[in-house]
Amino acid sequence: MSAVPKPALPAERQAFYAKIDQANVTPLWEVLHSLISATPNTPCKPYLWKWATVHPWILEAGKLITAKEAERRVLILENPGLRGRSRVTHSLYAGLQLILPGEVAPAHRHSQSALRFIVHGQGAYTAVDGERVTMSPGDFIITPSWTWHDHGNPSSEPMVWLDGLDIALVELLDAQFFERPPEEAQHTTRTAGESFASFGNTMLPVNHEPRSRTSPLFWYPYERTRAALATLAKSASPHACYGHKLKFVNPATGGSAMPTIGTFMQLLPQGFRGKPYRSTDSTVYSVVEGAGRMKVGGETFAWGPKDTFVVPSWMPYTLEADGEAVLFSFSDRPVQAVLDLWREQEG
Amino acid sequence: MSAVPKPALPAERQAFYAKIDQANVTPLWEVLHSLISATPNTPCKPYLWKWATVHPWILEAGKLITAKEAERRVLILENPGLRGRSRVTHSLYAGLQLILPGEVAPAHRHSQSALRFIVHGQGAYTAVDGERVTMSPGDFIITPSWTWHDHGNPSSEPMVWLDGLDIALVELLDAQFFERPPEEAQHTTRTAGESFASFGNTMLPVNHEPRSRTSPLFWYPYERTRAALATLAKSASPHACYGHKLKFVNPATGGSAMPTIGTFMQLLPQGFRGKPYRSTDSTVYSVVEGAGRMKVGGETFAWGPKDTFVVPSWMPYTLEADGEAVLFSFSDRPVQAVLDLWREQEG
Amino acid sequence: MSAVPKPALPAERQAFYAKIDQANVTPLWEVLHSLISATPNTPCKPYLWKWATVHPWILEAGKLITAKEAERRVLILENPGLRGRSRVTHSLYAGLQLILPGEVAPAHRHSQSALRFIVHGQGAYTAVDGERVTMSPGDFIITPSWTWHDHGNPSSEPMVWLDGLDIALVELLDAQFFERPPEEAQHTTRTAGESFASFGNTMLPVNHEPRSRTSPLFWYPYERTRAALATLAKSASPHACYGHKLKFVNPATGGSAMPTIGTFMQLLPQGFRGKPYRSTDSTVYSVVEGAGRMKVGGETFAWGPKDTFVVPSWMPYTLEADGEAVLFSFSDRPVQAVLDLWREQEG
Amino acid sequence: MSAVPKPALPAERQAFYAKIDQANVTPLWEVLHSLISATPNTPCKPYLWKWATVHPWILEAGKLITAKEAERRVLILENPGLRGRSRVTHSLYAGLQLILPGEVAPAHRHSQSALRFIVHGQGAYTAVDGERVTMSPGDFIITPSWTWHDHGNPSSEPMVWLDGLDIALVELLDAQFFERPPEEAQHTTRTAGESFASFGNTMLPVNHEPRSRTSPLFWYPYERTRAALATLAKSASPHACYGHKLKFVNPATGGSAMPTIGTFMQLLPQGFRGKPYRSTDSTVYSVVEGAGRMKVGGETFAWGPKDTFVVPSWMPYTLEADGEAVLFSFSDRPVQAVLDLWREQEG
Repeated sequence: MSAVPKPALPAERQAFYAKIDQANVTPLWEVLHSLISATPNTPCKPYLWKWATVHPWILEAGKLITAKEAERRVLILENPGLRGRSRVTHSLYAGLQLILPGEVAPAHRHSQSALRFIVHGQGAYTAVDGERVTMSPGDFIITPSWTWHDHGNPSSEPMVWLDGLDIALVELLDAQFFERPPEEAQHTTRTAGESFASFGNTMLPVNHEPRSRTSPLFWYPYERTRAALATLAKSASPHACYGHKLKFVNPATGGSAMPTIGTFMQLLPQGFRGKPYRSTDSTVYSVVEGAGRMKVGGETFAWGPKDTFVVPSWMPYTLEADGEAVLFSFSDRPVQAVLDLWREQEG
Repeated sequence: MSAVPKPALPAERQAFYAKIDQANVTPLWEVLHSLISATPNTPCKPYLWKWATVHPWILEAGKLITAKEAERRVLILENPGLRGRSRVTHSLYAGLQLILPGEVAPAHRHSQSALRFIVHGQGAYTAVDGERVTMSPGDFIITPSWTWHDHGNPSSEPMVWLDGLDIALVELLDAQFFERPPEEAQHTTRTAGESFASFGNTMLPVNHEPRSRTSPLFWYPYERTRAALATLAKSASPHACYGHKLKFVNPATGGSAMPTIGTFMQLLPQGFRGKPYRSTDSTVYSVVEGAGRMKVGGETFAWGPKDTFVVPSWMPYTLEADGEAVLFSFSDRPVQAVLDLWREQEG
Repeated sequence: MSAVPKPALPAERQAFYAKIDQANVTPLWEVLHSLISATPNTPCKPYLWKWATVHPWILEAGKLITAKEAERRVLILENPGLRGRSRVTHSLYAGLQLILPGEVAPAHRHSQSALRFIVHGQGAYTAVDGERVTMSPGDFIITPSWTWHDHGNPSSEPMVWLDGLDIALVELLDAQFFERPPEEAQHTTRTAGESFASFGNTMLPVNHEPRSRTSPLFWYPYERTRAALATLAKSASPHACYGHKLKFVNPATGGSAMPTIGTFMQLLPQGFRGKPYRSTDSTVYSVVEGAGRMKVGGETFAWGPKDTFVVPSWMPYTLEADGEAVLFSFSDRPVQAVLDLWREQEG
Repeated sequence: MSAVPKPALPAERQAFYAKIDQANVTPLWEVLHSLISATPNTPCKPYLWKWATVHPWILEAGKLITAKEAERRVLILENPGLRGRSRVTHSLYAGLQLILPGEVAPAHRHSQSALRFIVHGQGAYTAVDGERVTMSPGDFIITPSWTWHDHGNPSSEPMVWLDGLDIALVELLDAQFFERPPEEAQHTTRTAGESFASFGNTMLPVNHEPRSRTSPLFWYPYERTRAALATLAKSASPHACYGHKLKFVNPATGGSAMPTIGTFMQLLPQGFRGKPYRSTDSTVYSVVEGAGRMKVGGETFAWGPKDTFVVPSWMPYTLEADGEAVLFSFSDRPVQAVLDLWREQEG
């Protein structure tokens, strides 16, 4: 739906357009209707990936290619409206990464910020700037922009997590950099838990000075998150649209854990029937616990544990839960917020 | 140049890819080499639009279409590497807008932030939220996100300015909104000069509370800018790469005048031979005074007054001036800065 | 007026108090009534210093002591409720400083922040970190915390300005430092006007990174201030309590010019009869232009050009002007604001 | 030690001083030497209050006066250099508060911010704006500026905590307000643990907008604090001066828990012999675990569990521990920091 009409195209205009085209000049009025829309006109479509469907494929991928050959053995979840562009929303990337027992995904660093949300298995680790953390389902982990990171699986079971990256955003800004370290694997220089002890308890090292907008805490364990949600479920009223919803924050600033990707965890009470909600940040959900439905644009997407689904910008949707349910989600909300572009609407 | 190698593609992998494709799933390792590059891999190319070339076309456009039919009568300056996409850089739009004597470009508002840099003529006005300012060459004007704005030319001469907008960025974020007011033209409700008196003198109204990140000052007159540069030219040493360079700021925060577009004015001393410089923000320049050259990637672009040129992300370039020269420029630098993505390199 | 009652004092309590007193322990309940009050219980009293009274004394001081012997030849304006404590309000110091033709007030630096508001004469200079500015009546100048500064008068007339310092605040915090430079006078290393060109025009040097919360601009000329007020007087409605009032800001942050002292300039329209106003920041006023009255607590203080007066915290007062009047003022408002303590009340 | 010399005082100067004194005017040069010092010249002295000494007195106070009559039954710890002024440092107040089984300290609110550090006993509660938390030794609790708060002891044992308030600072600013609620005790409107679930886990409610600079979390349990210190003691190197030291922060901003009082917890490893350290914030310590010494100005203060001691601004001191020790401390550091006045020096 265009906000402005398209003008007529008589021959003399056509001739003019051809002439100026030679010097990389073109008339705005011929394209204005497509540049400007009254409301967001996203190519992103709603979609759901069932765990039962993708899990076997993930395991099959484990036989087709090694983590080392693949650099990262990931199945990209591509939005049906953005096929071939490696995007789950207009601005973000999502994929399910598999790491098999004994494997190592080699160290590198890049401008892109990444989140890891643990979906399946446990015992593998992520190392960030020399500190390892062992991952369990529901844990939220970040590998911040331009930090060395690798993954390894010393456990005896395959492990799968959801990756979320800001690839398209960094690409639009032409600010991407990538580096490999001198050695394939990072040296572990810090004891596991040091970051969490330093930053994870509403305290900071006395002389801490933030060096970036990204959280110095890179591991947000599900044990903590789940306990907080359980308390809220008992003590507070759920929001009519989204239940009990918390955002992960950078403890040194109160801002989002990463400047480019907002991350959230919410609990829907048993039998929750949410009111319609929309916001301008297309959002990817990963189901941690429970089952329910997301309804949008006349469609119903039934979800259960480990499923992933995506809701496009500005489309009103509702969330429903059967038993109590817990959902992780991520979007580009902090980018929109810091640029004064974010909007939401309830009901 | 890819940062990671592309794996082999045996038949079994091909079959697997076909299977998972049905559910909008695709292997990362087949596209990782194109997603990740060691340094910015911008589609943006350097280019220069000569005023002598485009000025006649602008006037010709004035005969081909009215401001009213066109909504905005603008010739888009399209980057040669991004043809058909209405972009001067990867993330930004630029165009030269003409308004003829007696014309009015009707009021509207949109999420996109816009800058107006006055290139040619004077006496037309821009009105923002009911306050008009009369524009002169070298003036820098903003029409902030979601503010009502229109333009009119009560003078007797055609007027041309450079428009810069963040269209591609807002599009990537799917956060665009557009509205027309009830009436075609805004009512002027505030006296010309009230904003400048309130915000333009290193003072703020005593009870001012910023409501957005955008500057409450919407007019930065060239008279002030030029005088400041003249003083610096006499008193301070020029930077080896970019001479005397100032950024336009929001007086209520010290941040950029708009959150999405950084704007700059610089003076190159007579005979200036700048050292190479690069940064990750592809930059559009508009020549205010003087003549000189921009050298990049083996090419030389000779510029003079009212010319427009663009320098891509991360390509080292040099600036040279014959006599003293003054350049206005804009880029997406504040977006990169607030997301911790911006880099620069001198020499 | 006490917010809590004082308990009885039987003999056994007295004996107990005497016992614990030996170890620097004392009962709260005996002093709580004096520590806690329902509203501010300031020792500060309203007062006015007539220029006609103090001007001859200032000149007399010029004969009694040299600037060099005095270090700074200043007559302190002591609040009548705080005699002997060198304070014009509970937290701030004010004095009128005289510098005679040919004199130099030697360079030093200290933790205390200082403002200079030019009352009388012109042609003397203040130098801050090697850059001189020549001062005229109505100019507002800062010598920021821990910057080298001196004053000199190469003109042929005596010059007087109002000093405002945060001495009591820095004393309470026990954070005072003072240093003399190796040489008595600073070397002038920067051209006059460089700071103003860099920071005084709603622009900042492109690579500016603030090193402190204090404004990098140290001279706010009255010419600019007065012109802004004149425009507002024509275009905007005056506030019912304080007319047209602007605050001086740090252009790099939008905060107050100094973190410890807020500074303001306001225009009262001809015949202005302000409504009552009070705030928790006791405020010192210096009259720049015009004549009028300040009424507080049943008293009327009639003021004219170059007079200084003080209004205590939380006492409702009104301002009236005969012809158009301009008032400079300062207080500890930014300290209160940043500590979430500031309150105001209109009417 | 004065930074500037005091001038001579001939008879004519004396006469002049007498004359101007009538109008509340006085010469700066007669007092400048006392106003300005080369380094902090604090009246605060080092001192230590032994628990063994004050504990019996606290219990005795419980028999001499009721909590209700006293409003707050507190023994003030007065700095020996500031007797009669209810101050433990130049700017801060400290006291030990007793609440007996069955007692209630009635609800009120005031501009002053308060901390409660639990020293002895457990089972009493503090309620802040309708939410109760039960307190245990080592817990750090805040009752923020202008929030309703009360205390009660439904347990069967006396409970003692250390109060810290910013009384002198608020007094200097003349910004004090105090109110009683309509009813003596607050209604408990929120479930215990709701704030902690909402703010205590490096997450925030999704739509949280800070309304003040004070932490929305008012309870920092020792269990968390102690576990973090234990991990750091195993994993990180202690700072040469202060061991492993964390600051309590506002999770919504990363700033100090309260804007006016900084609060810290540190672990000194077994046998720690700290290097000298000084800073401009006079600091009050409360010993949580272990025993050791604080040496300052030639004196040695031997401390053990539940002792309180104070170190003045800018006096170099050392900390030593026998076994592992844990110290809580507080000071006005955030005020100094936000005003750019804070300094520290190691070694």
